[in-house]
Amino acid sequence: MQNNGYEEQNINNVQDILGKEFKVLDHGFIRLLEIMGDDSSICQAARVSYGKGTKSVREDRALLRYLMRNAHTSPFEMVELKFHVRMPIFVARQWIRHRTANVNEYSGRYSEMTDEFYLPQADQIRTQSQVNKQARSEDQLDETRANEIIEQMKDSQAESYNEYKEYVAEGVAREIARINLPLSSYTEWYWKIDLHNLFRFLKLRMDHHAQYEIRVYANIIADILKQILPISYEAFSDYILNSVTFSKSELFKIKDSIANFDFDNLTPENSNLSKTEIAELKNKINFIKQL
Amino acid sequence: MQNNGYEEQNINNVQDILGKEFKVLDHGFIRLLEIMGDDSSICQAARVSYGKGTKSVREDRALLRYLMRNAHTSPFEMVELKFHVRMPIFVARQWIRHRTANVNEYSGRYSEMTDEFYLPQADQIRTQSQVNKQARSEDQLDETRANEIIEQMKDSQAESYNEYKEYVAEGVAREIARINLPLSSYTEWYWKIDLHNLFRFLKLRMDHHAQYEIRVYANIIADILKQILPISYEAFSDYILNSVTFSKSELFKIKDSIANFDFDNLTPENSNLSKTEIAELKNKINFIKQL
Amino acid sequence: MQNNGYEEQNINNVQDILGKEFKVLDHGFIRLLEIMGDDSSICQAARVSYGKGTKSVREDRALLRYLMRNAHTSPFEMVELKFHVRMPIFVARQWIRHRTANVNEYSGRYSEMTDEFYLPQADQIRTQSQVNKQARSEDQLDETRANEIIEQMKDSQAESYNEYKEYVAEGVAREIARINLPLSSYTEWYWKIDLHNLFRFLKLRMDHHAQYEIRVYANIIADILKQILPISYEAFSDYILNSVTFSKSELFKIKDSIANFDFDNLTPENSNLSKTEIAELKNKINFIKQL
Amino acid sequence: MQNNGYEEQNINNVQDILGKEFKVLDHGFIRLLEIMGDDSSICQAARVSYGKGTKSVREDRALLRYLMRNAHTSPFEMVELKFHVRMPIFVARQWIRHRTANVNEYSGRYSEMTDEFYLPQADQIRTQSQVNKQARSEDQLDETRANEIIEQMKDSQAESYNEYKEYVAEGVAREIARINLPLSSYTEWYWKIDLHNLFRFLKLRMDHHAQYEIRVYANIIADILKQILPISYEAFSDYILNSVTFSKSELFKIKDSIANFDFDNLTPENSNLSKTEIAELKNKINFIKQL
Ligand SMILES: Cc1cc2nc3c(=O)[nH]c(=O)nc-3n(C[C@H](O)[C@H](O)[C@H](O)COP(=O)(O)OP(=O)(O)OC[C@H]3O[C@@H](n4cnc5c(N)ncnc54)[C@H](O)[C@@H]3O)c2cc1C
Ligand SMILES: Cc1cc2nc3c(=O)[nH]c(=O)nc-3n(C[C@H](O)[C@H](O)[C@H](O)COP(=O)(O)OP(=O)(O)OC[C@H]3O[C@@H](n4cnc5c(N)ncnc54)[C@H](O)[C@@H]3O)c2cc1C
Ligand SMILES: Cc1cc2nc3c(=O)[nH]c(=O)nc-3n(C[C@H](O)[C@H](O)[C@H](O)COP(=O)(O)OP(=O)(O)OC[C@H]3O[C@@H](n4cnc5c(N)ncnc54)[C@H](O)[C@@H]3O)c2cc1C
Ligand SMILES: Cc1cc2nc3c(=O)[nH]c(=O)nc-3n(C[C@H](O)[C@H](O)[C@H](O)COP(=O)(O)OP(=O)(O)OC[C@H]3O[C@@H](n4cnc5c(N)ncnc54)[C@H](O)[C@@H]3O)c2cc1C
Repeated sequence: MQNNGYEEQNINNVQDILGKEFKVLDHGFIRLLEIMGDDSSICQAARVSYGKGTKSVREDRALLRYLMRNAHTSPFEMVELKFHVRMPIFVARQWIRHRTANVNEYSGRYSEMTDEFYLPQADQIRTQSQVNKQARSEDQLDETRANEIIEQMKDSQAESYNEYKEYVAEGVAREIARINLPLSSYTEWYWKIDLHNLFRFLKLRMDHHAQYEIRVYANIIADILKQILPISYEAFSDYILNSVTFSKSELFKIKDSIANFDFDNLTPENSNLSKTEIAELKNKINFIKQL
Repeated sequence: MQNNGYEEQNINNVQDILGKEFKVLDHGFIRLLEIMGDDSSICQAARVSYGKGTKSVREDRALLRYLMRNAHTSPFEMVELKFHVRMPIFVARQWIRHRTANVNEYSGRYSEMTDEFYLPQADQIRTQSQVNKQARSEDQLDETRANEIIEQMKDSQAESYNEYKEYVAEGVAREIARINLPLSSYTEWYWKIDLHNLFRFLKLRMDHHAQYEIRVYANIIADILKQILPISYEAFSDYILNSVTFSKSELFKIKDSIANFDFDNLTPENSNLSKTEIAELKNKINFIKQL
Repeated sequence: MQNNGYEEQNINNVQDILGKEFKVLDHGFIRLLEIMGDDSSICQAARVSYGKGTKSVREDRALLRYLMRNAHTSPFEMVELKFHVRMPIFVARQWIRHRTANVNEYSGRYSEMTDEFYLPQADQIRTQSQVNKQARSEDQLDETRANEIIEQMKDSQAESYNEYKEYVAEGVAREIARINLPLSSYTEWYWKIDLHNLFRFLKLRMDHHAQYEIRVYANIIADILKQILPISYEAFSDYILNSVTFSKSELFKIKDSIANFDFDNLTPENSNLSKTEIAELKNKINFIKQL
Repeated sequence: MQNNGYEEQNINNVQDILGKEFKVLDHGFIRLLEIMGDDSSICQAARVSYGKGTKSVREDRALLRYLMRNAHTSPFEMVELKFHVRMPIFVARQWIRHRTANVNEYSGRYSEMTDEFYLPQADQIRTQSQVNKQARSEDQLDETRANEIIEQMKDSQAESYNEYKEYVAEGVAREIARINLPLSSYTEWYWKIDLHNLFRFLKLRMDHHAQYEIRVYANIIADILKQILPISYEAFSDYILNSVTFSKSELFKIKDSIANFDFDNLTPENSNLSKTEIAELKNKINFIKQL
């Protein structure tokens, strides 16, 4: 709506990105189809609460960051994004667990499944992690063996697909013919979500606990957001992605170290912190000291 | 995105309507701020399932109507609308019950409340309905008395507001000062919702069971949709708003009458029904006959 | 909470059913783990609106049916059910699309997948339907061929599982080892949902458009509800499952037949309809006549 | 379901609390009507993912705390609570903004409004905060004046109610008669929510940014949870309520102080931290040092 100057660059970015296909994994992609709103719409929506109109870019940035760090999440719901995504079914199964989205998926009941399957790169054939009980470790399998596995997987995929095609050819209903296709089969969907819930998705799926194959999708979405919603993304990165939370028991232990912190000389000039943020930091340190 | 001809008129309609203020009640309004998608986006999203691309307007219309009458609601979630609305608090209280929306409301804690209050027209001062236990009847109060009531309401609103202003002036926190303001006070918000859930809102709030003061808002939203999403709205009107549902017991009773229905001569030419719809109607009638 | 007599039988039913394993398909099951509320809780919640207390069973039934046929869905959200379900992954993929539920699923990243896979019965190996473009038809494949296919599917499942076990044995991370397991692999989850949304699930998944393999689960849930929430289920069955909706254009066509309907002799005694329902039926018929 | 010993005390607590009326403000209350699940159900649900059965209380506690601090929120959704609450309308307006709940509210259209209104205590008549722009400050108004205001508010409430009664008496529809009742009028509802979203509600509404009059309700709910879900509540308190989050820019500033922290001597014995938590703390400190 209202345009207060700084949006021009951004609009160019959006134009460049809309509809563009970003390749992911071997046969996947992400395309941003449409976006409703931008960084300034978040502020506009928040300002309804204050009964005040449009402000300067600088004030917008300060407000947006304030909203982010204080968990005023509702204004971030005012931006909506629609993507077209293609990914292996085992990734789709993790993705769909995010319920605050609208989805239309390719149907293996209506339409024939394609012959594309995900094959990991050799360096992704890793051992089970001993630390993170759900994930792969940093240790790769012996490369020769890894390549053998990939070949075997490929053969197995081809075989499953041949049987599928055979069944379909003789008239078997697609919904039955497909039941033995592997979880590595590619599917695709339209996926629409608001920015607050997209950030939650990113927080969970960019994390090192998330499976590599969904993480690469999350990272690309993050790259897209960085360009089209630069202020929001920066705030998300500072206050959520790269923040650290200490529990009460942890604080109790680190409080003596923290107590050393001298915030008297802290100014907006010698830090990345605004005046408000400095005041908030003091409050946190004082809260910790008093534990 | 893809444009297949018939959208041009529609785009003009959208341009005419975006940002335009539609007056409602004495001090309320509705403004459509932004829309993501149009009638054809619904079809595009649905076609992801079929693995097929863009089609003609005629095919779009047939598909969209098919989706509507078969409760394939997910493609309708692919259109998103953002409104700015101003309404009395008692209306806002009913409205907010629709949880599938994003909201940013004017805050009586941050900002001063305005001096605008809803006053009913004399012809809306009606008696309690005896049939519909929650609503007003068709019977108006004696007009003189109605006008007296309106005057008294007005005085009472002014008095409440004066006290509010007085408290605020002497420094009382706004969140406390406002607690005796009447439910007729106006508030406003940004409200963002997808089309499927907006249709559900309309179905419930255009209904004669809904309170008049929210119905007038619903009706205006319906008028807006009619212009910017003509095919969707027509389908909603035919299959939801103006449809009739008969329960099993009712069907049991009307089945003899229905049995008389001669669908042999029914054709797309002599009815508003497509070939598919005629087949579906036959199925319904046969289902009823066999009860 | 309050117990007004008729609940005793029901409580027995609940005790019999809680925790009981209902077999579905070849290796699946459904177990109802917990339930919050019963038929009378729905009425109690609704009565908060009317500011009135507990009533007799008869009044409860009438109220509940009134709520159901008038789409007053919120009181049905006051009953919550928690299930433990085991099903093939292709069924789970359809099931999870119902977002208004809470889910905890078995993790193929943490834990080893079991060696159980779904194999259709020979009579379910059918051809693609020509009418319903997404489903199987009524026509079975030649039985010999069907049995061959089943054997081939079984071999293919065993092979995939052997490769999986081999990879896991040599230390490959489970999240990678499993990517070629078939969609027929069994998974399981805890699934918690409220009654309103469960009815919506049933409406969509008991329907003949739904895939047979999820329909059998929906049917068993329906059987469970019939026993533990008999009044609610009956209302759902009368007003939703077995009702028929006519669109405006259809009504226009059947209105002459309907006009024949003589409701003068219609009484609660000679029909399954209450006085209120008879009044509502008259309204519908009159609405139709005036089209 | 499965009971592993420590639940006995807890079951007693639940029995004592179910149905009990906790008074809030002058005419409000909270009653816990029903609960589905307990601390151990959360673990049971989580263990579906690991394919493992019931464990000891100690292991349950460790698991539950792990889930809480790693934002594995889905198992907390497996506990459901139903409350009966009575509160002033201005509180209800804030409360209802939490959309992840099921609600049935007293209807001013069906039923007559009662003559109870909220009146603040004199010490709550405070000035607008200069720091927190939405809230009251710590400064009370002069007590005499505060008491005057309370008297005036009381009169104003009585007057509004008299007019309301008068309108209703002469037959005016309740939905119209009530529009000038004040926001301080009491309403009530049944409110059902899962534990994850209830914690989110508490986090936002126990916070000092929340209005005092909703905070007192949140605090009482917290007290109830402390008794019936002691392990969950403790985890919530340690990891959410009393945790501190530092943004990237803040970390950059405090990193030198933090660097002093000597975790070599840190053991489960001399801290409140488990071995896993100590490992996690080291990771955090190392992450910070490397900024
Ligand atoms: C026979 C059949 C065929 C199907 N074919 C396909 C297909 O080809 N492709 C495909 O993608 N899907 C298909 N589906 C799935 C379908 O589109 C729905 O996703 C699914 O049935 C869940 O329905 P629901 O949205 O009503 O349920 P729920 O997700 O439980 O939602 C219930 C209601 O809650 C509200 N709601 C819940 N979450 C949200 C949210 N995040 N945003 C907005 N509103 C929300 C909506 O009002 C919704 O109607 C098919 C379903 C059936 C039954
Ligand atoms: C101190 C304070 C001040 C506030 N001031 C204002 C104000 O001035 N103006 C104002 O309008 N509000 C204000 N709010 C309300 C606030 O914006 C939230 O609406 C409210 O706190 C509910 O929070 P929630 O959205 O996290 O909760 P819920 O609605 O319970 O949602 C929980 C989570 O579920 C998801 N979710 C649920 N429903 C949807 C949906 N329909 N679409 C997308 N995601 C969904 C989201 O991930 C959400 O975070 C204030 C709240 C607080 C605590
Ligand atoms: C590393 C990792 C490992 C995981 N492992 C497992 C596993 O082993 N097993 C497993 O089952 N899952 C697992 N998950 C999935 C996880 O439990 C969540 O389902 C998923 O991350 C979606 O998160 P969400 O609920 O926050 O998102 P959304 O569904 O988008 O919800 C966002 C918020 O909206 C609200 N909300 C939305 N819908 C509802 C609803 N119907 N009812 C109540 N509140 C609602 C809630 O407040 C919620 O926090 C894992 C996830 C990650 C990232
Ligand atoms: C004429 C009329 C009279 C009414 N009278 C009363 C009354 O006396 N008392 C009263 O309390 N209310 C009353 N209501 C409000 C009514 O109960 C609903 O709250 C309101 O209409 C919103 O409807 P909804 O739930 O379908 O909409 P939404 O909240 O938008 O939900 C749409 C769908 O999404 C799903 N959904 C969304 N959020 C959730 C969630 N958190 N959990 C589970 N499913 C979810 C459900 O499937 C739901 O049907 C009345 C409404 C009308 C129209």
